[in-house]
Amino acid sequence: MSTVTCGVSVSLDGFVAGRNMTLENPFGDISPMLLTGWQFDEPEKNKAERDALVSAGAYIMGRNMFGPKDLQSDPNWKGWWGDNPPYHAPVFVLSHTEHEPIAMQGGTTFYFVTDGIASAMKQAKEAAGSKDVAVAGGANVINQYLAAGLIDELWLHIAPVTVGRGQRLFKDTPGIRLKPLEARTTDRVTHIKYRILHD
Amino acid sequence: MSTVTCGVSVSLDGFVAGRNMTLENPFGDISPMLLTGWQFDEPEKNKAERDALVSAGAYIMGRNMFGPKDLQSDPNWKGWWGDNPPYHAPVFVLSHTEHEPIAMQGGTTFYFVTDGIASAMKQAKEAAGSKDVAVAGGANVINQYLAAGLIDELWLHIAPVTVGRGQRLFKDTPGIRLKPLEARTTDRVTHIKYRILHD
Repeated sequence: MSTVTCGVSVSLDGFVAGRNMTLENPFGDISPMLLTGWQFDEPEKNKAERDALVSAGAYIMGRNMFGPKDLQSDPNWKGWWGDNPPYHAPVFVLSHTEHEPIAMQGGTTFYFVTDGIASAMKQAKEAAGSKDVAVAGGANVINQYLAAGLIDELWLHIAPVTVGRGQRLFKDTPGIRLKPLEARTTDRVTHIKYRILHD
Repeated sequence: MSTVTCGVSVSLDGFVAGRNMTLENPFGDISPMLLTGWQFDEPEKNKAERDALVSAGAYIMGRNMFGPKDLQSDPNWKGWWGDNPPYHAPVFVLSHTEHEPIAMQGGTTFYFVTDGIASAMKQAKEAAGSKDVAVAGGANVINQYLAAGLIDELWLHIAPVTVGRGQRLFKDTPGIRLKPLEARTTDRVTHIKYRILHD
């Protein structure tokens, strides 16, 4: 049975990105490394958590996470990750506009889903088989899946900083109950793994 | 040298209380035990953290945490904690109205401070001597001290629930950098101890 996971780097005050996100500044007015730097500054100390982020059999992400506002405006856009993205699996991109699948090197193919989050989840589960499905981001997409009760495990990577304003995880997602499974910390990041209780 | 600590129970989405706080419902529209229940449901598992909450040599709290909106309206009000409050030390209550100190059993005395958070901190440090000063709450007072850079250690007790709306910790407190010192979890609460970096 496939588990739906969501691993996300977040500030201590609950932000996934700052304000004024643009194509040039996908994290808005904060440094790109402020929240995710633990993956690069402490690769060995955080090996298990880094590996987990790219262990799924299929991924779901928002269109903002994939790229520019209007995919048609740049027909050659293929995501932020170069020719060989780290996913090595199907990635389902939630989009308002139709787009042909984009096959990349290394097994990553971006599929564009225009009929909603439940449809994207269904397609991702079919593609993943017995492996996990990962909801990759951004905040808006994660919050939609949290509110819909479609995530099984939440892997929080809490950066020891506050941001103040921006894209907030858990925006308008009341009444979620979770069970902490693990917690540990390094100097740069605190990992908490939760199971979300659905009953 | 006295350390200024702040131990606070918070929901996973960063709330210290719900909405519509009243004298009858100091946690607003959420259950009083939702965030602080770990202290009572799992006393042995959380003994160190429970003991730490009442280990300081002096405390600071907001007027909302102490009691009713207008202290003059109930001259016999002596806080929520009965005749022998758990503090056993001086407690400095931030207030807009003057009030005589209230001496309770067991060493707790409530002092009312009308000239601001820095003055309350100065008085608390003098009273605490070499022991810690604890900023006890609520959210508004903690956020003021965080923004002023006057807290040294933050002890978060994260309840595995989301609340959605209410009194938010870290409201408008950008740019704080911290060093995680410890993290551990039980089924009911995840404890993270931080040092706040002031340099």
